[in-house]
Amino acid sequence: MTKPLFLIIVLITILSSTSASRRFVGTHKTHNNINVVQQQYTYDIKYFEQTLDHFSFSDNLPKFQQRYLINTDHWVGPTRMGPIFLYCGNEGDIEWFAVNSGFVWELAPRFGALVVFPELTFSRSRFGLSSPYSEHRYYGESMPYGGRDEAYKNASTLAHLTAEQALADYAVLITDLKRNLSAEASPVILFGGSYGGMLAAWMRLKYPHIAIGALASSAPILQFEDIVPLETFYDIVSNDFKRESTNCFDTIKKSWDVITSVGQKANGLDHLAKTFLLMRSSDDLSNWLDSAYSFLAMVDYPYPSDFLMPLPAYPIKELCNRIDESPDGTTILDRIFNGVSVYYNYTGTVHCFDLDDDPHGMSGWDYQACTEMVMPMSSNRNSSMFPEWDYNATSYAEDCWDEFRVIPRPTWITTQFGGRNIKSVLQSFGSNIIFSNGLLDPWSGGSVLENISDSIVALVTEKEHILTMDELGHLKGAHHLDLRAATADDPDWLLEQRATEVKLIEGWIADYCKKKKAVFNM
Amino acid sequence: MTKPLFLIIVLITILSSTSASRRFVGTHKTHNNINVVQQQYTYDIKYFEQTLDHFSFSDNLPKFQQRYLINTDHWVGPTRMGPIFLYCGNEGDIEWFAVNSGFVWELAPRFGALVVFPELTFSRSRFGLSSPYSEHRYYGESMPYGGRDEAYKNASTLAHLTAEQALADYAVLITDLKRNLSAEASPVILFGGSYGGMLAAWMRLKYPHIAIGALASSAPILQFEDIVPLETFYDIVSNDFKRESTNCFDTIKKSWDVITSVGQKANGLDHLAKTFLLMRSSDDLSNWLDSAYSFLAMVDYPYPSDFLMPLPAYPIKELCNRIDESPDGTTILDRIFNGVSVYYNYTGTVHCFDLDDDPHGMSGWDYQACTEMVMPMSSNRNSSMFPEWDYNATSYAEDCWDEFRVIPRPTWITTQFGGRNIKSVLQSFGSNIIFSNGLLDPWSGGSVLENISDSIVALVTEKEHILTMDELGHLKGAHHLDLRAATADDPDWLLEQRATEVKLIEGWIADYCKKKKAVFNM
Repeated sequence: MTKPLFLIIVLITILSSTSASRRFVGTHKTHNNINVVQQQYTYDIKYFEQTLDHFSFSDNLPKFQQRYLINTDHWVGPTRMGPIFLYCGNEGDIEWFAVNSGFVWELAPRFGALVVFPELTFSRSRFGLSSPYSEHRYYGESMPYGGRDEAYKNASTLAHLTAEQALADYAVLITDLKRNLSAEASPVILFGGSYGGMLAAWMRLKYPHIAIGALASSAPILQFEDIVPLETFYDIVSNDFKRESTNCFDTIKKSWDVITSVGQKANGLDHLAKTFLLMRSSDDLSNWLDSAYSFLAMVDYPYPSDFLMPLPAYPIKELCNRIDESPDGTTILDRIFNGVSVYYNYTGTVHCFDLDDDPHGMSGWDYQACTEMVMPMSSNRNSSMFPEWDYNATSYAEDCWDEFRVIPRPTWITTQFGGRNIKSVLQSFGSNIIFSNGLLDPWSGGSVLENISDSIVALVTEKEHILTMDELGHLKGAHHLDLRAATADDPDWLLEQRATEVKLIEGWIADYCKKKKAVFNM
Repeated sequence: MTKPLFLIIVLITILSSTSASRRFVGTHKTHNNINVVQQQYTYDIKYFEQTLDHFSFSDNLPKFQQRYLINTDHWVGPTRMGPIFLYCGNEGDIEWFAVNSGFVWELAPRFGALVVFPELTFSRSRFGLSSPYSEHRYYGESMPYGGRDEAYKNASTLAHLTAEQALADYAVLITDLKRNLSAEASPVILFGGSYGGMLAAWMRLKYPHIAIGALASSAPILQFEDIVPLETFYDIVSNDFKRESTNCFDTIKKSWDVITSVGQKANGLDHLAKTFLLMRSSDDLSNWLDSAYSFLAMVDYPYPSDFLMPLPAYPIKELCNRIDESPDGTTILDRIFNGVSVYYNYTGTVHCFDLDDDPHGMSGWDYQACTEMVMPMSSNRNSSMFPEWDYNATSYAEDCWDEFRVIPRPTWITTQFGGRNIKSVLQSFGSNIIFSNGLLDPWSGGSVLENISDSIVALVTEKEHILTMDELGHLKGAHHLDLRAATADDPDWLLEQRATEVKLIEGWIADYCKKKKAVFNM
């Protein structure tokens, strides 16, 4: 565990884009033994000439084209103050996130809303693990400097990849869009999950004149400095496994020492490579396993899904089954391999894994984590199934310097967006934000889990962290599950959470329209 | 009138700075016939290593030293949650603004507050008219790139001279300062006048976690795009003269055509130069006069002052007296010269004016006005004493390109900070801002003159613009007069305005401490 985990890893994307308008009809994708139903969403693809640096006026920076998806089918139009739903794009191709945010599409007809999904600048895959989904390996198009390679060239070209610039992009885009549509009076509602959820919440706080409310799903805006305990993330991941099976948890916990001790033997790395079907020997195996467990904790959805990887319903249960039910005499390493294959190879089509398959050697989120999005994490041997790990700011900074030639600013995000004493700061200040979380999601630990005021509310699956085995079993939720399309397998708590969200958003809009009409009638 | 007027012109500064700590004792300055009493304020001068670009991570930008003044004499300290008063520096040397913001110093003992005056980066004189106050021609020290000439070299070095960077400077500085003083719990109150007032208001809106309230004096945050009528500024200046004397107003109004017609004659410019004691012939005379009238409207203080220039009490009255009471037969041009001498030469020591005496050819505020601080203004012949003037965005942008090689972004400030529908946007969102204005101040027209909510309040000398001659006589106030030190000549309305400000700030702090203690006692 030599590197921090980042919010979302973009491994696969759904579609490549060549035309300026398209109808997405990928309704049914069949893999070996997985059947993922995907919804039909319609949108136009448009481009907006964007300013690379909103906060300075350098004369030598190029403009660039920001891609956005737009759908006006259900919009009741400007005269009826039809709302605008703005999805705050994540660190990945926007079409991929659009397809995985069905809730926004499903709400549009009900609200008579226009839907916009702008793509985050510099959006692209974090790394390019070879996978059976290479047809999905589509990167975002919103690239400055003319293209992906140019934009990711060095610290200078990456310099403007920041959250603040992204918010400014949205503000400028939506202001222009509203003007062009004569829809200045239309209320804007922000949606976002994960990093996009953070952007949605921050956008509502920093640009209250642009958007009247935000649904920030699984948005760990408190995962900075020491606002939450540094062990939170890995403790939640560990609990997600413990609740399925103590044996599974214990096996994983024991495995790290075994891996280390095997790796240190003569030909040990080769042995590990053989066991785990690695293309070549690597000492990065622990990171690879860490990623699998952590991402499974995020996407432990109650139905088959294909967000990060094609997965069965409740994939942690499946992983633990494979560990627990391997035949007697199976070694720990083989059990672990059987288990993580649920994540990396559920379709069974991969014969060999390449841990270092990053075609460009750097990624957007890694860069952001090395500049402003510094989310310190540790792992505590007592509560975690991961190896002991203490966050070390110095070595973190050294790694960032080595990789990107940048110096992290670990206190900048809280200086810019706040986070400490968030309740007292925001209760007389902000309004209209929903922080939704599922407590099985490891990012929930850095999110807002308590109501801040009447209109800044936390929707969580359970009110508290509960740690007895019996109670662990009652925890629910996964990473921005509420933003996904409705399915027949959605549990009751999810239906309730979404119903509350709809009611709150309806309230924001009704309140806004009432005030607008009052002004109009004056 | 070929250029817009800018917020504050920094002509003179009070002190030069060579030592790291100083006691300012310039209590009494005597000029020919003007007696300006200045207060004694004590502060240390410190420097903080600041990031040039908070919103990107370019690897090739230097750090720089931001100067700030600090006084802890009256501070009751962190354990008693002693407040921190943060003055948001203006576009000029911070010592000059500190001396002209006596209210902040006077409040400190009453509140047991620490006082900080950070200097705005790139602070310096707008232009360097030769004046009898060359000993004041001190420029700010907070210069990136090693010095004034380097920082003002070109569009690239000036690129980070923006309001957003300034706010981020304050946020980073105050966060660091509080940490070093273990004063994280101390409430921060922002003060600012004019551009500094805009920064104070915006800071409260954008950084509510940093500061609990703001006194924004004479802060024209609505003077953008077409939020207020473009004629507002010049109409108020004109009314300020009309209320003193209709004849004075009419004489000025007539003078422009006379100047034009004389200037167009053979040797006309020489004639004008002789009449107005100009060092050389210039067609910039109209701008020079425009500036005099406009600045007089800003600093029409009820006592002798030395803010922009050494001036008598009620200088507009004095100017109009000189115009009106020139002997019969005095030409219009001579009357005008007699009048504006109140502004440019009240001490009578100047024998020759140089209209183009800008040693560097460019200025900070001019640059800001050419990038984000685009405040469109027009002049309407019917209501104004100035020549007809229609704002022309195209020629404005061309001038900016010629001067700085930058392209203005006229809609950026409202996109970033809002402004339209400010009442409905902020009434359920912001809190704890005082917008104070005197209605004689031409910048009041672009300020917030109506209460937005219970805690975002407007303090104005009169509730409405009143235009009959009789009512004009009752208008009061000048540019951030309330922030100046108390004097024996302060009118009653000013005492009341300040008393209300103190009461509101006391309320913010009491409310904050109550909440803090409630948390502490939990």
